[in-house]
Amino acid sequence: MADLITPRTLSGFRDYLPDVMLAREKVLDTARRVYRSYGFTPIDTPACESLDVLLGKGGDESDKLVYRVLSARGDKAEMGLRFDLTVPFARFSAQYINQLGTPFKRYAMGPVWRGERPGQGRYREFWQCDFDTIGTTSNASDIETALVVNDLFTALNFDTFEIRINNRLLLNGLLELKGLADKAVPLLRSLDKLPKIGREKVIEEMVKEAAVTAEQAGTVLDLAETTGPNAEVLDRVEAFFAASPNDKAAEGIRRLRELLAVAKAAGVPDGRIKIDLSICRGLDYYTGTIYETFLTDLPGIGSVCSGGRYDNLASKYTKQVLPGVGASLGVDRLIAAMEELKHPWLTGQTTPAQVLVVNFDAARLGDYQRIASVLRSAGVSIEVYPEAKKVGQQFAYAEKRGFKLAVTAGPAEFEQGVWKVKDLAKREEATVPEAEVVAKVKAVLQ
Amino acid sequence: MADLITPRTLSGFRDYLPDVMLAREKVLDTARRVYRSYGFTPIDTPACESLDVLLGKGGDESDKLVYRVLSARGDKAEMGLRFDLTVPFARFSAQYINQLGTPFKRYAMGPVWRGERPGQGRYREFWQCDFDTIGTTSNASDIETALVVNDLFTALNFDTFEIRINNRLLLNGLLELKGLADKAVPLLRSLDKLPKIGREKVIEEMVKEAAVTAEQAGTVLDLAETTGPNAEVLDRVEAFFAASPNDKAAEGIRRLRELLAVAKAAGVPDGRIKIDLSICRGLDYYTGTIYETFLTDLPGIGSVCSGGRYDNLASKYTKQVLPGVGASLGVDRLIAAMEELKHPWLTGQTTPAQVLVVNFDAARLGDYQRIASVLRSAGVSIEVYPEAKKVGQQFAYAEKRGFKLAVTAGPAEFEQGVWKVKDLAKREEATVPEAEVVAKVKAVLQ
Repeated sequence: MADLITPRTLSGFRDYLPDVMLAREKVLDTARRVYRSYGFTPIDTPACESLDVLLGKGGDESDKLVYRVLSARGDKAEMGLRFDLTVPFARFSAQYINQLGTPFKRYAMGPVWRGERPGQGRYREFWQCDFDTIGTTSNASDIETALVVNDLFTALNFDTFEIRINNRLLLNGLLELKGLADKAVPLLRSLDKLPKIGREKVIEEMVKEAAVTAEQAGTVLDLAETTGPNAEVLDRVEAFFAASPNDKAAEGIRRLRELLAVAKAAGVPDGRIKIDLSICRGLDYYTGTIYETFLTDLPGIGSVCSGGRYDNLASKYTKQVLPGVGASLGVDRLIAAMEELKHPWLTGQTTPAQVLVVNFDAARLGDYQRIASVLRSAGVSIEVYPEAKKVGQQFAYAEKRGFKLAVTAGPAEFEQGVWKVKDLAKREEATVPEAEVVAKVKAVLQ
Repeated sequence: MADLITPRTLSGFRDYLPDVMLAREKVLDTARRVYRSYGFTPIDTPACESLDVLLGKGGDESDKLVYRVLSARGDKAEMGLRFDLTVPFARFSAQYINQLGTPFKRYAMGPVWRGERPGQGRYREFWQCDFDTIGTTSNASDIETALVVNDLFTALNFDTFEIRINNRLLLNGLLELKGLADKAVPLLRSLDKLPKIGREKVIEEMVKEAAVTAEQAGTVLDLAETTGPNAEVLDRVEAFFAASPNDKAAEGIRRLRELLAVAKAAGVPDGRIKIDLSICRGLDYYTGTIYETFLTDLPGIGSVCSGGRYDNLASKYTKQVLPGVGASLGVDRLIAAMEELKHPWLTGQTTPAQVLVVNFDAARLGDYQRIASVLRSAGVSIEVYPEAKKVGQQFAYAEKRGFKLAVTAGPAEFEQGVWKVKDLAKREEATVPEAEVVAKVKAVLQ
C-alpha cells in the first residue's frame, strides 16, 4: 500500500466545519439581502489577476503580501491572487463603466489572500463582503453607506454597536488651520494608531516621523480626541474655524451634519452613529467621509466594517474620474467576534435540517421518502436516515447534529396510516394521521 | 502622470457582470436550499492546498492542470489551487470524520482552477456545487442523490431534463460475462466517449486500446446501447445473466430497480430517470451507481450535473474506509445553457431592487430615505437616486437597470402628504397617501 499523506491545512489557512459554516452562510445571506435592499447589485471577478493589474508601482508594502501564481504549464509568475476586493473592482470599473453607466452600486463577496504571518484570528485566506457606489460625489451616497451599515448589523442580530464616522476634509482643514497641512500624511498615519498605542506613543511618533514639536502633536491630538455629543463636537470644530474659515472643513462639517439629520429621519437610533475625530483610516486612498464599526461588547477586536469616500477609484487603469464611497465587512473577524460573544447564530447545530425520518426498515424507504417529500414541499428541511440501524443510534445521531424533531413509523403505524412526531428537546411524542403530519411538524417547530 | 495599465482579465478567466451574476446567485441559492432541504450541511475548505495533498502520485494528467502558488515571500511552489472540490473534501474527511461522525452529508460551493486551454464556455476558473453522503454504503443514499438532482433542476425552473443512471457493478458484470473483465479499464474509457465520437470510432478505439476483436467491441456496444423503457432494459440485462448468474450485476440491477421504485413513491415524474447502460464516467473513481443530467432542449452541452458512488473517498490520507455517493453541479456550464435557452432567470435586469425613489430635491433626502426605509422594512428592495438630476435622466436610469416601479414626490405632493407610485412598464401612475404607499407598491409588484 502506498504511504499515506497527512491530511492537513496549510499554515494560515482554515477549514470551515458545519457549525461555523452555517453561521458564515447566514452572515453572507444577511449581507446580500441588506445590500440588495438598497439596490446594490452583485458582481464577481476572478481570484487571479495579472501582476501588473494587481501590484502598485513597486515597493509597496502590500505588494509583498501578494501570492504569485505560476502560469499554466509554465514557470513564470505572471499572475497573483487578489489581496482585497477593491483592486479588482477598480480594474473592473475601468473596463466596464461605460457599458454599465453611473451611478453604479455593486456588492462583491469572496475570499482574498495575503501572505502575512498568521496569528490568532488572522488568516492568509479570509472573506470580505464589500459594497460601493461609484460615479457620484453626492453626499446622499455617503449617508446611505452609514444606513446600510446600520441595517446590516441590526439584521446580523447585534443591537449594541456604534458606527464611528469622521471626514478627511475636516481633518485636513484642522491641519491647515494649525499650519501642518504639509505634514498631513505622517501625522494622520500616526493618529490612526491612537486606539492601539495610546496618546503618548502617538505624540512620540508624530515628533519623530512628522518633525513637529510635542506641543504641535498635542494640539492635533486634542482636536482628534474632542469628545461629546455629536452636535457639540461639530459645534466646537466649527468654533475653531470662526476666525479663519476653511472651505474643506466647512464642507466636511456640512456633510457630517447632513448625514446625522438624514439618518435620524430614516429611523437610525440615537447614539448609533458617533462623530469620532480620531478615526482617519488608510491614508492616501480616502478623501471624504470615513467609517468604522465597533461592537460595543467587544471593542478590543477593532472595527468589523470600515470604509470611506475616495476621489478616484480607477486612476491606475483609466483617465475617467470615478469617485465613490463604500465599506467592507470583515467576515472572518466578525465570526471570531460572534464566537467570543456566544452570538445566537452559533447554535452548535451542525445540520441545516430540522427533522429526521427514522429508518426502521430499509424496505420502507419509499414511505420514508414520500413523507419527506411532502414535508419538503411544505418548506421543511428533512433528512431520511440512510440505514435501518438501531433506533437508539439514530436518535443519538439526531441529538448530536441538532435536529429538532424525529418522524417515525413502525409496522403498527403503517397499518394505521399514522406517523409519530417526536420533539427531541422536550421528549414529547404525538401520533398523527399522515394527512396531518405537515401541520403537526410546523406547529412543533412553531 | 504615470502610464495607465490596461484593465483586462487573464486569458481563460472571466468577470461576472450584474445580469449574469444575478442569475448565478439565484442558481447557487437554489442549490443551497435544495441540498439543505435534504440535510446536507455546508463546509468550506481553502482555495490552496499543499501540493502533496493536491497531486496524485505523479504523472497524472490532471496534475499538469494544477496552478502552483509560490509561498509567501518565497519562491518555492509548495502549494496549489484546488482543481475540484472532491480532493479537498477527501482531505477534509480524513482529517475530521471521527469528530463529525457518519453518515456525513455535506455540500460545498466555490471556484476551482484548471490550467487548461480555454475555449468557448471553458474557463480556467469555474464554479462547482457539490453534495455528497459519506460513511454509508446504503442504497438509500444513492437513491437520495437522484431525488436531490430531480428537486434541484425542478427548482432551477427546468421541466424538461433527464437523469441518466447506470451502475458500474452492472457494467463490470457484463464484461465478466463476456470474458472481458481484465480489459474493463480501456473498454470503459472508450465507451465513455460514445456520445462524442459515435459507435464506429468507439469500436476502433476499443480494438486498438483494449486489444479486443471488433466483434467483441461490438458486443459491448450492443449491451451499452440497449435502449427501451427502464424495466425492459433491466429485464433484458437480467436475461443475459440467466445462464451464468453474476453477483455484481445482480446487485447493480437490484439497486437500480430499488432506485426506480423509491423515486416513484417520492413523486418523481415518469420518464425523468432513464437507465442508460452507456453512461460510465470517471474510470477508477466510481464503483456503483452513476448519474448524468441532460437538458432535453440542449443535449449538445453535455451533462450539467454528474456523479456517482465511490468505494473509498479518502484512501490517500487515511486507512479508514469512507464509501460515499454524490454529484456535482457545473455552475458555469449550466449558466451557459441558461443563456442559450433564454432561461427566464436571465431577465436582462441589472439591479436586484424593484423600486427607485426619484430625487427631485437634494434637500428632501431625509424624506426619500424615510419612505425607502418604510418600504425596506416591508421587504421591498428600493434605491434612492443619489443626485437631484433631471427626472427624465432618472427614469432612463430606472429603465436601463430594470426597476419595476418609481416612487416620486415633488413640492405639491409633500404639501399633501402623498407619493406618486409609477409602474414603469405600464406607464401608469397613482397618487396615494404616505400611509398607503407600502400596500400600493406591493399591489403593483403583485
